[in-house]
Amino acid sequence: MVLGLRLHSALYPSWGLACLLPRSFASCPGKSDSCLTMPQLGLLHRRAWASLLGQLRRPPGAVCIRVVHSHSQVAEATLTSQLKPHQEKSNFIIKTPKGTRDLSPQQMVVREKILDMVVSCFKRHGAKGLDTPAFELKEMLTEKYGEDSMLIYDLKDQGGELLSLRYDLTVPFARYLAMNKVKKMKRYHVGKVWRRESPTIVQGRYREFCQCDFDIAGQFDPMIPDAECLKIMCEILSGLQLGDFLIKVNDRRILDGIFAVCGIPESKFHAICSSIDKLDKMSWKDVRHEMVAKKGLAPEVADRIGDYVQCHGGVSLVEQMFQDSELSQNQHALEGLRDLKLLFEYLTLFGVAEKISFDLSLARGLDYYTGVIYEAVLLQTSARAGEEPLNVGSVAAGGRYDGLVGMFDPKGHKVPCVGLSIGVERIFSIVEQRMKNVGEKIRTTETEVFVATPQKNFLQERLKLIAELWDAGIKAELMYKNNPKLLTQLRYCENMGIPLMVIIGEQELKEGVIKLRSVASREEVAIKRENLVAEVQKRLSES
Amino acid sequence: MVLGLRLHSALYPSWGLACLLPRSFASCPGKSDSCLTMPQLGLLHRRAWASLLGQLRRPPGAVCIRVVHSHSQVAEATLTSQLKPHQEKSNFIIKTPKGTRDLSPQQMVVREKILDMVVSCFKRHGAKGLDTPAFELKEMLTEKYGEDSMLIYDLKDQGGELLSLRYDLTVPFARYLAMNKVKKMKRYHVGKVWRRESPTIVQGRYREFCQCDFDIAGQFDPMIPDAECLKIMCEILSGLQLGDFLIKVNDRRILDGIFAVCGIPESKFHAICSSIDKLDKMSWKDVRHEMVAKKGLAPEVADRIGDYVQCHGGVSLVEQMFQDSELSQNQHALEGLRDLKLLFEYLTLFGVAEKISFDLSLARGLDYYTGVIYEAVLLQTSARAGEEPLNVGSVAAGGRYDGLVGMFDPKGHKVPCVGLSIGVERIFSIVEQRMKNVGEKIRTTETEVFVATPQKNFLQERLKLIAELWDAGIKAELMYKNNPKLLTQLRYCENMGIPLMVIIGEQELKEGVIKLRSVASREEVAIKRENLVAEVQKRLSES
Repeated sequence: MVLGLRLHSALYPSWGLACLLPRSFASCPGKSDSCLTMPQLGLLHRRAWASLLGQLRRPPGAVCIRVVHSHSQVAEATLTSQLKPHQEKSNFIIKTPKGTRDLSPQQMVVREKILDMVVSCFKRHGAKGLDTPAFELKEMLTEKYGEDSMLIYDLKDQGGELLSLRYDLTVPFARYLAMNKVKKMKRYHVGKVWRRESPTIVQGRYREFCQCDFDIAGQFDPMIPDAECLKIMCEILSGLQLGDFLIKVNDRRILDGIFAVCGIPESKFHAICSSIDKLDKMSWKDVRHEMVAKKGLAPEVADRIGDYVQCHGGVSLVEQMFQDSELSQNQHALEGLRDLKLLFEYLTLFGVAEKISFDLSLARGLDYYTGVIYEAVLLQTSARAGEEPLNVGSVAAGGRYDGLVGMFDPKGHKVPCVGLSIGVERIFSIVEQRMKNVGEKIRTTETEVFVATPQKNFLQERLKLIAELWDAGIKAELMYKNNPKLLTQLRYCENMGIPLMVIIGEQELKEGVIKLRSVASREEVAIKRENLVAEVQKRLSES
Repeated sequence: MVLGLRLHSALYPSWGLACLLPRSFASCPGKSDSCLTMPQLGLLHRRAWASLLGQLRRPPGAVCIRVVHSHSQVAEATLTSQLKPHQEKSNFIIKTPKGTRDLSPQQMVVREKILDMVVSCFKRHGAKGLDTPAFELKEMLTEKYGEDSMLIYDLKDQGGELLSLRYDLTVPFARYLAMNKVKKMKRYHVGKVWRRESPTIVQGRYREFCQCDFDIAGQFDPMIPDAECLKIMCEILSGLQLGDFLIKVNDRRILDGIFAVCGIPESKFHAICSSIDKLDKMSWKDVRHEMVAKKGLAPEVADRIGDYVQCHGGVSLVEQMFQDSELSQNQHALEGLRDLKLLFEYLTLFGVAEKISFDLSLARGLDYYTGVIYEAVLLQTSARAGEEPLNVGSVAAGGRYDGLVGMFDPKGHKVPCVGLSIGVERIFSIVEQRMKNVGEKIRTTETEVFVATPQKNFLQERLKLIAELWDAGIKAELMYKNNPKLLTQLRYCENMGIPLMVIIGEQELKEGVIKLRSVASREEVAIKRENLVAEVQKRLSES
């Protein structure tokens, strides 16, 4: 009879932890790789037990092996495949999934600083918070992202609904508006999104990343909310001190008009648009080649497109386009140009027009944009003067999407929307790098006071003391040792940047005082025990 | 020849939004449900086009239909199934996935208040922040949760790694420690976790929910970190003013000892443990029945168990158990009892011992606990005096898990850990309900100043003014209208609780002043334009 052994993780201290099995057990020959006969099982069980018995004392959670019963009354079945990685040590790599990462305490501090700054800007502009689930019904996400749909993470069908992880925060926002019949809303949303992209982590591209979105939904007079979105992008990028930046602006309707004027068949709009979208990474020559060779555009048509999309400038370029006899005949282009002109007027009033560039090469990947689109890039000033600033990639983007909410509404009721998304991961990489370069030391805790003792057997006094501090709202720590060394405690404070120490020993206990020490200056004063909390609070409020 | 029509979402304003198709189009008879012959296609195309042309003007993102080419040069293939829900309107329900929900702005305010309070407590105890991905390699989660493993959400295999959504924040923390060879760490983590439970949302149980975890990893003297975890739970539950509460404490090793003493075969430990875990929802009679009838325990063994697990009390019960001649012979039980005694000593020093109950019925579901376990329940004081307080469910829980990190380490190196998790969703439901009962009005924005005008054609002045306020860090809003009515602006401020209005009109422009109005008192004063920002800041700092 073939029997097996199932290994249990630590439900009780006397149950087995698979990874702690002796090697000899895992590699013992059985009927097959994963089956053991009854005598072998008994033998192994005893052997393994014996070899592990030494660990059965402290610390709690020690290890042994247990034979379990299943469908029959005899010990059962196969080493499970899940357990194998723990045993075949060479194959067992502990890692996060491809394209994802943990954020260490140092990174969390930087991340929180950036997010606080971004959120406080969103709140300054009157936005409300909103949260949506990490996954949506799969059908909510289909037909929203064009070619990028293939990057959506689907959940396994485990019975019930078909679900997908959200790809951005915009579609869930539109779904929320339609579902709750909200016609007007200014909201922000900070959350993770997931995309199955080939991760090139060096550039700060992840499969899981955080987005900070601000959107204005509702029917308003043209370009006022749009201008506020650009103002917000400027405030955030200035506030984060990322160096000089530029926001490229275009309009889907202008691109549309240009394509029509150049004689591109409507069926090729999307393909040509995605070629043009590559102009920030590829030269015009390469993009032109792609359009002609791969997308079947006539060379002269490609050249006409080239004349347009290589243009960029300020509001004067808008005026220039109005003068274009063909383009100004196109209804879409004309609407786009009129709106852009108005937009520049408002941006001038907001004092940010000089940060904005009308750039006809800007196309944006996502399907749902219908009007103004924009994208912020950081300009890296090169070492030598006179050289052109270097584009180090997009850090924020957005645009107008007037059709998306209607896609969710059974009657197609529209809610015009405009919004922006801050690409925190790239900003985060830049800030992190800058801090490293400067050698800035980051405190990962906020502890204000350390409760120490120079003597043995003072744990009880320390515990009483620290509870008083905690109860007074003071951030405090102590060593989790009965008898810590004073030097260890001092060093910990210095390493962690804790500003104050309170020290209790025999002498202090006798005199009813506590020693209060400034870690930086090493000055110590004795404070009456009953005044300690007040004195600590005073010191902290002064610093 | 059979041809079809593919519908495109709004890549450009001139492209089609499926949901806006006229009914006649969707229901038109073709060769089959999803195929249309060429003549029909042409006919439909023109008809649909014509009926939609009216929408082709403003607003941007208007609608039409486009025939696309695919593998051949002719118009192609089938209405896609994804589009059907938008057309078969009766089937198209906009909703969030089962067991999940959006958080509205009102709910977000409550949520943030609670999270701020929880996180500030964690920071008060010296914890560092940490973040991990929403999903882990599937194998990282296997064999960690016992029976609950079937509640894990798996991602669809789309090529590459097999992934699962995290089930809690504890296992990712242990994975982080093992992966980075961290031997000592005090961290907090606030994040969502996902469990495929049958959602009974009434009780505040969701499939997506937020957890707030605090854990201490490292080899320390016994029970000091454990006591701090319980102190933290007390601080948070007191701080949130949720009413009276109680923290049940037990130890896996004591349960283990009891089972051994009662003569339960080790193979049944897990099953009996999960029966006992139901004692907070079921009577002892029902639990006993389950143990005897379903889990095959002899009635007299069940009764012996019953004598133990129905005990609860303070530190005196610990002493009583020490006197139990059989239990005190069991090595595991003895270790557990010794630790609990020490724990109570420390909790007394922390001033929280009266909140703690040694409860032998507490078992906790998760596999990985190895020592002390605890669970906080809110006590609802009943209307009539003298009645026993009602248990309204667990709001925080945790315990010691000394084996978990070792499960990830190729060499099985252990890092002892103890921690706690705050169940924010239940707390959130309670606080939300309380606010509703009291009729408390929640501000969903933080706007301090509204920029208004009583006259037409003052958009430019308003935009200039609000930019000044924003640039000074003042939270400000205006109407996105060229010519809003003053009454509408006033009402908005009253509804949203905005305290200040700045008003600009012809008179003010002429005199170089701005009117500053207190919304509550309706008092207005004229302020010199150049002093406005300073005056607003002064007013805001005073309030």
